[in-house]
Formats: sequence, C-alpha cells, structure tokens
Amino acid sequence: MDLVVKKFGGTSVGDISKIQGVADLIVRYISQKNRRVVAVVSAMAGETNRLLHLGRSCVASPVPRELDVLLSTGEQVTTALLAMALCERGVKAKSFSGWQANISTDRNFSRAHIKAIDTKALNQALEGGFVPVVAGFQGIDDEGDITTLGRGGSDITAVALAAALKADRCYIYTDVPGVFTADPSVCSSAKLLRQISHEEMLEFSSLGAKVLHPRSVYFAMAYNIPLVVKSTFQEGSGTWIVKEGKLMEKPIVTGITYRTDEAKITVSKLPAASSAFGALFKRLANEGIFIDMITQTGFDGKLTDISFTVLDEQSSLALEITQNLVPELRAQGAFCDRNIAKISVIGIGMRYHTGVAARIFEALAKEDIAVEMISTSEIKVSVVVPRKYWEVAVHTLHSAFVGEDLTIEKESQDEIRSAV
Amino acid sequence: MDLVVKKFGGTSVGDISKIQGVADLIVRYISQKNRRVVAVVSAMAGETNRLLHLGRSCVASPVPRELDVLLSTGEQVTTALLAMALCERGVKAKSFSGWQANISTDRNFSRAHIKAIDTKALNQALEGGFVPVVAGFQGIDDEGDITTLGRGGSDITAVALAAALKADRCYIYTDVPGVFTADPSVCSSAKLLRQISHEEMLEFSSLGAKVLHPRSVYFAMAYNIPLVVKSTFQEGSGTWIVKEGKLMEKPIVTGITYRTDEAKITVSKLPAASSAFGALFKRLANEGIFIDMITQTGFDGKLTDISFTVLDEQSSLALEITQNLVPELRAQGAFCDRNIAKISVIGIGMRYHTGVAARIFEALAKEDIAVEMISTSEIKVSVVVPRKYWEVAVHTLHSAFVGEDLTIEKESQDEIRSAV
Repeated sequence: MDLVVKKFGGTSVGDISKIQGVADLIVRYISQKNRRVVAVVSAMAGETNRLLHLGRSCVASPVPRELDVLLSTGEQVTTALLAMALCERGVKAKSFSGWQANISTDRNFSRAHIKAIDTKALNQALEGGFVPVVAGFQGIDDEGDITTLGRGGSDITAVALAAALKADRCYIYTDVPGVFTADPSVCSSAKLLRQISHEEMLEFSSLGAKVLHPRSVYFAMAYNIPLVVKSTFQEGSGTWIVKEGKLMEKPIVTGITYRTDEAKITVSKLPAASSAFGALFKRLANEGIFIDMITQTGFDGKLTDISFTVLDEQSSLALEITQNLVPELRAQGAFCDRNIAKISVIGIGMRYHTGVAARIFEALAKEDIAVEMISTSEIKVSVVVPRKYWEVAVHTLHSAFVGEDLTIEKESQDEIRSAV
Repeated sequence: MDLVVKKFGGTSVGDISKIQGVADLIVRYISQKNRRVVAVVSAMAGETNRLLHLGRSCVASPVPRELDVLLSTGEQVTTALLAMALCERGVKAKSFSGWQANISTDRNFSRAHIKAIDTKALNQALEGGFVPVVAGFQGIDDEGDITTLGRGGSDITAVALAAALKADRCYIYTDVPGVFTADPSVCSSAKLLRQISHEEMLEFSSLGAKVLHPRSVYFAMAYNIPLVVKSTFQEGSGTWIVKEGKLMEKPIVTGITYRTDEAKITVSKLPAASSAFGALFKRLANEGIFIDMITQTGFDGKLTDISFTVLDEQSSLALEITQNLVPELRAQGAFCDRNIAKISVIGIGMRYHTGVAARIFEALAKEDIAVEMISTSEIKVSVVVPRKYWEVAVHTLHSAFVGEDLTIEKESQDEIRSAV
C-alpha cells in the first residue's frame, strides 16, 4: 500500500473555498485503491500575521513561550476545517495538533528543531482508515510546552513525518506549478524542471528560490525522501526532487537563482595576516549574524581588503560591530554596501564539468556587469553584482546556460556513474 | 497562603486593552503578600462565534470532534495574550490549554463533563511562583482528543479548578457588579445582593439570571467553594455566594427572576388516570426535550387537562410528538401556547416561612395578571403568566417582596438553626 504525505501551504488553504478544494483533491487522490494520505497544513494565509499583530499589540515583545502558544492556533484551525470538509465528503479524517501527533522538538521557541516523531497515534489512525490531518509548523518539547518551528516549518513537518512514517513520497502543494530554471516572474523563458536532485534543490532554496525552505530539503536529502513540488490549483506533474542516482538526466546547469536581500561589508587595507579576523567573525556569530560569502581582494603584498555578505536586515548591526573592531584589526576602515545582488548558477553536472565560472564572467562582461565577489561550491557558482543589474544578470545567465540544452550526454553520464 | 481562582469571561477579555486591564487587576491583587492566583479565561468576545461561522461556512454540519478542535483555539489565544501581558508586567506567568492543565472530560464533544483534574502541573507552576493562565471551556478525553464543555463552560472550569486545587475562593469576573434582586435592566429598584446561598444561586441561574451557569453553581455547592461574582471594570465587593450556614442574614425572598424563552403545551380533556402519560414523557426525553413545569388543571371528576413547559426552540417538536400520542392518551387534543413567561420568587427563608405563594397570587391579582401555572420548591415559587405581562409581573413581585425588608429576624434565625 502506497503512503504519501501531502502538505498544503497557507495560500493553498487561504480561504474556505480553497480548503474545500484541498478536500476534493485528497478525495480524488484516495479514490484510487491502495493509496493512503497524511495531510499537513499551514495556517490560512494571513492568519499567522494576524495573530502576530494581536500579540504585538498586547505587549512590546511577547515572551517566546506564549508567542508559540498563540501562533500554533493558526494551524489548529486549518486542521479542524480540513478534517470537517473531508468528513463531509464521506472520508474518515481526524485532525492532529503537533502534540497529538507526538512531534517532539527542542525548547527553542519560535525556531524549534524536530527531535523525534512517535508515529504510534498516526499509524493507528491510518490503520483505522482515517486521513490524519496534521498541523504543520508546531511540536511539543520535553516539558509539555507548545513550540513552533519557525519559517518553512510546515514543509519541515511534512518531510519529517514522511521520514518517520517511511512514506513513499512527500508532496509540497503550493501556488506555483513547481521549481523553475529561474524565477518565472523575472525570466519569461524560465522552464519548469521535471526533476532535480536534493543537492541542487538545497542550493536553489538557500540561494533564493522561495518554493521550499532549505531545512526541509536538507531533511528530505538526509532521509532520502522523494519530494514533489506542485500546484494546488493546476493540473500537472510538478517538479520531482529525488536522489541524484535517480535523475533521468544531469544538466550542467539546472537553474539560476538570485537574492537581493543581502549587503556587503568591506574591511579595507588591513594586514593580510591579521589574526583579529577570527575575533570579528566570532563576535558577529555571537550576535546571531549569519555570514554568507567571504572574499579577500586587492592583496598588494602586505595589505588586503576583506568583504563578506550578511542579510540586509542585520547589516547595520554587523557594520557597527565591525567598525568597533577596526583598531584591533589595524585596518583603515569598514564600510557597508547594500546595493548588491547575489546571482547563483546551480547544476549537479558542474561536478563533472569545469569552466562554468569562466563562462559566467564572460556572459556578464558582455553586459558590462562587474563581478564584485565570487564563491563556488561543487554544484554552484554565486556572484555578487551591483543590485541595479540583478534582473539583467539573471536574464543573461539564464539564456547563457539554460537557454541552450547543456545536458551531459547519456553516454558520458553512464561513464561518470561507473567511475564513481 | 491564600489561593484563589479568578475567571474572566469573554467581555472581560473582549479586546487587547481589556486583556491588559485584566493583567493590571491580577498584578494589583498579588501585590499584597500571601496571595496566589490561578486565572481562567474565555475566548475574546465574538471569537467563538467567528470560529463557529468559519466551521459552518466550510461544511453544513461540522463533525463534533473537529468543531471542538476549532473552538478550543479561541481560549488558547486569550491564555497566550494574558500570560504575555503578565510577563511584561514583571509577573511570572504561564498559559495552560485544557490538556496541559490535565482537565479530563468524558467524550461528549461540545458538551463534555469534567471527570477529574490532575493538578500536578498547575501546582508545580504555583510552587514555582507562576500565575497559571488556564483556558476555560475545554478539556481532553481518555483518547487524547480535545473536548469543549458547552455553554457556561469557562465558569465550570473555574469552579472545578478551585475544587481540585482546594482554593479558598473562586471569583467570577463579568460585566455586571454582581447578582441583583432582579434584572436591573428591567427593574430599576433592583439591589445588588451582598450575599446569597449556593442553593438560591442555583435557582437564580436555572430560573433566568444569566450571570452564572447552573452547572458551575452546582459544582460550587457540591464542593463547597465560595464564589464571588463581581465586575471586571468597576470597584466593588460583588456578590458572595456561600454555604447557607455562612449567610449573615436570611431574607425570605432574595430575588425575582424571569424567563421568556419557554412555551406551554396542554393536553386537553384526557382521562385522569391515563397511563399513557408516562409514555409521552419518555418519548419527549428520548428526543432530548427538557420538560420544566408540569401541572394538572380543570379536573371535573373524570377528565383533566395537563400542561407542561418546554423551551421555545423545542416546542414545535414537542407539540408534534404530543399530538401523535393524542389517540393513545384518549385526549381531546393538544396545543401549544408560546405567549407565556415564567416569573420566579426565590429565597432561602421560604424554608421557614409559608404564605409566599398566597402573597404572589394576591400581588398579581391586583394587576389583573392571571396565574396560568404554579410550581413550588423548598426555596422558590415559579408562576407562569401571559408573556405580555412579564415586565409588570417582575416589577409587582419585586416591590411586593424585595422592596420591603422581609429579613427573618436574628432571633428567629438562631431559633431555626438550633432547631435544625
């Protein structure tokens, strides 16, 4: 018997008629035999913000434990409504809050991590012929307190449940048909990807594609859960996110992503061997500032410039901390540039193919776009460019890499496989 | 150390500023030493209806289990907000859902009864110096499902918690200053009662006073919990509802209540010895129809009329059932009169004082109001009158009994006590 987890995000359950639509979708799915479903739902679109606003209008800074108690009601409402809608359609269904589904987390309120899921109650419901409708985004800690998982939480709940229940697949229903080679609202020639590896999806998510949260992709990769991203509102097979070995084809470049929410901080003219840099990064980390790219430039034998990128919203604090350390670093100064964008070129085929970085420089140079920073991994190249050129850069790189069919040929793939 | 339960109804926590006001009230209360509080809260006014509407706009008739999951979020939101507001005021506070407070109920969704409360978690919080803020109206059944207690549920939660925690008192905060000798919106001369016995309050609640639900009064009486009904928004000592033995004085008549939501069904001209009447009442009970007063009139030696009152909303069904049994009852017919009102005169002093019924007839006769039915208990007399006269009847009886000071004198009270 086939068991799948189907997760419906906030826009998919955004109002009553959409919840009814989701119920119809589930009924259609299980009308074919040997199919069992566990549904995972988010709060109705706007509900989490409404609750947050309620909390913040009550107190200036809500205590984390109580904020989670407040926010967790959003998903609970959706589970009840969807379970009702399924029951009305003659399907046995039962809602589960995070604590009822035994989703154990640590005690980091508002950004808790799932530690374990005891599937006894869910399995019992499944064996009884019920469709369990589980509240995403929430769990319970060892002290019996309600916790929430933070951004992307419902995706993580879905993938973690799929892993714990040893489900065959996990569907992530959303308001787009799947994962595209580039953001289709920016790049009209972007194509829907039929397949993509977990590793590539992890880069896509981390580097700007909003369709899935990196933590949920990481979970799916770690537990080898095939993910399917598809639209709640349109027919279509969506994008399948699978183990690398299961890919039908391996393009060198799978897609282009961008982020325009980062800023670059540069420490100028400091001794190349400055040991104080460790202290700077430690202090930034202690303040919860996440550092993304780090590059060293302009080395003249003695002095060098070091740049790193941080989230826009953390850039003022990061700059302040950095400036305070300028004397200790024996640098000339520190400044911040918020007018940057990061464009990333991603593809699992890069593992077996060099020259992508060179082609990026070449393509961007044709458009007179300067590359300010570059960072590479085994399957991606990210470049920082002036923010005003971000759309041109996405277009240029998309047509340079994805426009052409740069798939590694079947023969060379087989060759690679036998070599690994 | 003094421990009290304070319950705040929907209007008391109706918006953010009112929740802040409740937090201030609690802070003031515990600023005096040796005072501990457990707060019980309802959903914000209007919230339960909003959730009900959401459920009913999703499906025609929501399954009871899921309706309770949906509705229980209303109180959870309030617990979080009040706990936040307390924390911001420097008070340690912690919210508890019904399941976190271990409020065990039976499995009658939407009208569950509390079976037991394991106070371990609450006592632990109290010992840790926390103000527990408990969601009223909800519990958990043996299968781990969320249940709600139905109308008056938060009052019942408060009183049951007070009993389980062996609290010294239970305060019911509401939007009126306490219990009055009559509805002050009808009878401007109505006076606030300083004290009233549990038994009288039970009659007040059952016979029309809306300030407390009969089930919560019954609980308080059974566990001998002093209840205090007072206003959230005004200073004042409120009304204390205590054991009969603790009353300072025992008026013959404590107050007047009314109900205009009942109807009278009459079965006319049936043999006085008809054994079929038992079958009728059994059938009505099986349909969930609650019968209040029953009277027999017009006996002429052979034939008699029997009348009984039911809730207006159940009267059509009750009449249909009764009419179907007319042949079996060998009666002439059955009809329904919805134009009735029930006025009750309540007072614990009636136990030791006769002649109240006679004085009621006398007072109403002066206003030409016919008494259609009468029913008495040890501490109350209820009469049914034409509905159009209900206000006049309340005024007349209030000035006849409560206007004067009909308190039994101290001497005779002592006499009675020694006699009991």
